[in-house]
Amino acid sequence: MGTLLIRPPGHHRDVALRPAATAMVWIGEGHPHEMIAVPGVSLGDADVLVAVEMSTICGSDVHTVQGRRSAPTPLVLGHESVGRVIAIGDDGALAVDGTPLRIGDRVVWSVTVSCARCDRCLRGLPQKCRDLGKYGHDRIGVHGDLTGAFGSHVQLRAGTAIVRVPEALPAAVLAPAGCATATAWAAVARAAQGRDLEGVTVRIHGAGLVGLSAAAIAADQGALVEVLDPNPERRALAARFGATALDREPDVVIEASGHAVAEALAGVTVGGIVVLVGSVFPADPVPLDAESIVRRLVTVAGVHNYTGAELAAAVGFLAGRGRAYPFADAVGAVRALAEIDEALLAAAAPGAPLRIALVPGR
Amino acid sequence: MGTLLIRPPGHHRDVALRPAATAMVWIGEGHPHEMIAVPGVSLGDADVLVAVEMSTICGSDVHTVQGRRSAPTPLVLGHESVGRVIAIGDDGALAVDGTPLRIGDRVVWSVTVSCARCDRCLRGLPQKCRDLGKYGHDRIGVHGDLTGAFGSHVQLRAGTAIVRVPEALPAAVLAPAGCATATAWAAVARAAQGRDLEGVTVRIHGAGLVGLSAAAIAADQGALVEVLDPNPERRALAARFGATALDREPDVVIEASGHAVAEALAGVTVGGIVVLVGSVFPADPVPLDAESIVRRLVTVAGVHNYTGAELAAAVGFLAGRGRAYPFADAVGAVRALAEIDEALLAAAAPGAPLRIALVPGR
Repeated sequence: MGTLLIRPPGHHRDVALRPAATAMVWIGEGHPHEMIAVPGVSLGDADVLVAVEMSTICGSDVHTVQGRRSAPTPLVLGHESVGRVIAIGDDGALAVDGTPLRIGDRVVWSVTVSCARCDRCLRGLPQKCRDLGKYGHDRIGVHGDLTGAFGSHVQLRAGTAIVRVPEALPAAVLAPAGCATATAWAAVARAAQGRDLEGVTVRIHGAGLVGLSAAAIAADQGALVEVLDPNPERRALAARFGATALDREPDVVIEASGHAVAEALAGVTVGGIVVLVGSVFPADPVPLDAESIVRRLVTVAGVHNYTGAELAAAVGFLAGRGRAYPFADAVGAVRALAEIDEALLAAAAPGAPLRIALVPGR
Repeated sequence: MGTLLIRPPGHHRDVALRPAATAMVWIGEGHPHEMIAVPGVSLGDADVLVAVEMSTICGSDVHTVQGRRSAPTPLVLGHESVGRVIAIGDDGALAVDGTPLRIGDRVVWSVTVSCARCDRCLRGLPQKCRDLGKYGHDRIGVHGDLTGAFGSHVQLRAGTAIVRVPEALPAAVLAPAGCATATAWAAVARAAQGRDLEGVTVRIHGAGLVGLSAAAIAADQGALVEVLDPNPERRALAARFGATALDREPDVVIEASGHAVAEALAGVTVGGIVVLVGSVFPADPVPLDAESIVRRLVTVAGVHNYTGAELAAAVGFLAGRGRAYPFADAVGAVRALAEIDEALLAAAAPGAPLRIALVPGR
């Protein structure tokens, strides 16, 4: 009798990994990660196997291990990463710009895997695909074990937005692109509503990496940006990301903390827009004064994740005018992948840096 | 010694009215209206004096006399009206389409009077002008007594959007244009966000005249529209305004009742937009689940009043394809202006028609 293996549909090619790949498996709150060896992958015809150069710990990874978000275990966490293509399925794969990916390309990729065929994908909402997959969020097994950034490799599937990145940019700048930077880009784009941001006043609540990235993106587009955060060190950092003080009510408010929704709604000017992007964890409802929203002609827009085009634009910014801002300083510590539990504790500690990075093979 | 008169700035020309104009002055809750005779007006150089043909009682007029909205008294209520130009200031005045107004033109006009110079006017928000005036809302005196629709005449000031209307259309169709129809037009335009509404699913909460008008406007643009209202007669009427049943979650929700904000937020599809337009009276705050707004990529947009261009577009609809819908049936009773108190009571009664009209000189 043979062993029954769960295999994804479609043709696959077995690829051996020597040495074996490593994945850090999280089995639930209060348990340390378990390191597993992955001696090979079953590579789908449009899959791309990436060797991780660096991954960063996002706030939502911390929330998950603290039990503040539900997650299907066992899983490999991590969804901010930069790596290098080491294998490609038989049909080849394209970058977001339409060019074929090659072995050796340095890349970042979307958190989400989308079908490109359902009504939501066709409506321009691939991040809300009816058959959505998410790196670092899904149970391991069905699509192999290399499904999160907290491993030595990640197996990218068809429907992933993959963006080639320049060799010259530090990994610390690129690893967060697939979450913080692209989400910030999407938030600023939603706030702009197709307008030019030149001279527009923007208030950002929360000087986490999404808020700081949004500050730099908006400031670079000519907006006058202020960043509010209870932490004076973060406020000082915000100034380096383009923040200053506003001289009038904000035309745009970007709530990137999840803790200042009421202040965001109250503070925006008449006819302005509030982009909510930080509320990605359960919280008490916020009292909404509908009459005030109506009479002040306020728009409130939720943003979650981003499209492939937004990821590409975010990378373009990091590689171009974004170099004027200290994105590399977001990573305050680099730990070996095997030290993931200590790294997660450090990331959750008061005064933690914006990001702690993990690198395989140290 | 002469009498000290408060006069508005700028050159004015005194125009005698024979017979004297009539204005119904509201002095506060619990008091009947006082009819005053206005023997003449001081006509500013860009003013337009209109003889009222018909005015309609809006829900907000009812709210004001019931004490549910604050209002500066004494004032002349009423802001839904159609009339005819009988005098024009020395400099002349233009309709919204840029053509000069002439004596005898049949017109409707905006609720709001805007300066066209402040930051909000320049940002395309004339209805939130820093020096805003509102017919039917402001204390009488500074700009004369003919400041609301519940009179025989209304003195329109520079900064009012005035739209010429066809002789063929019934007054009952036109009187509400300057509030309900134009507001509905603005709400549908906000919901469309520049997109084509063909095939878009629209849910409307509230089968008042704003909701019904929005239904007809959206249906005419190819949307599939459903109207929710607790009143079965209103639901039946909604069917005549283009409403049917949706076969899937609404892409757009227009909350036109002020009583279903929570349902509106909960019901919209992922990536959809909720337009709040009915919340124009004080109400308890609605609990807002910010995480749900974020994860569902929902947009919430407040709409209050409208621009001059939107009023013109609304009139164009009423005069064109809107004739396919029973707008004239909105007016269920016509009373003499002198019967305003009875008319307001009737408008507040259960089962009241959508609008009760007032006509001068009966």
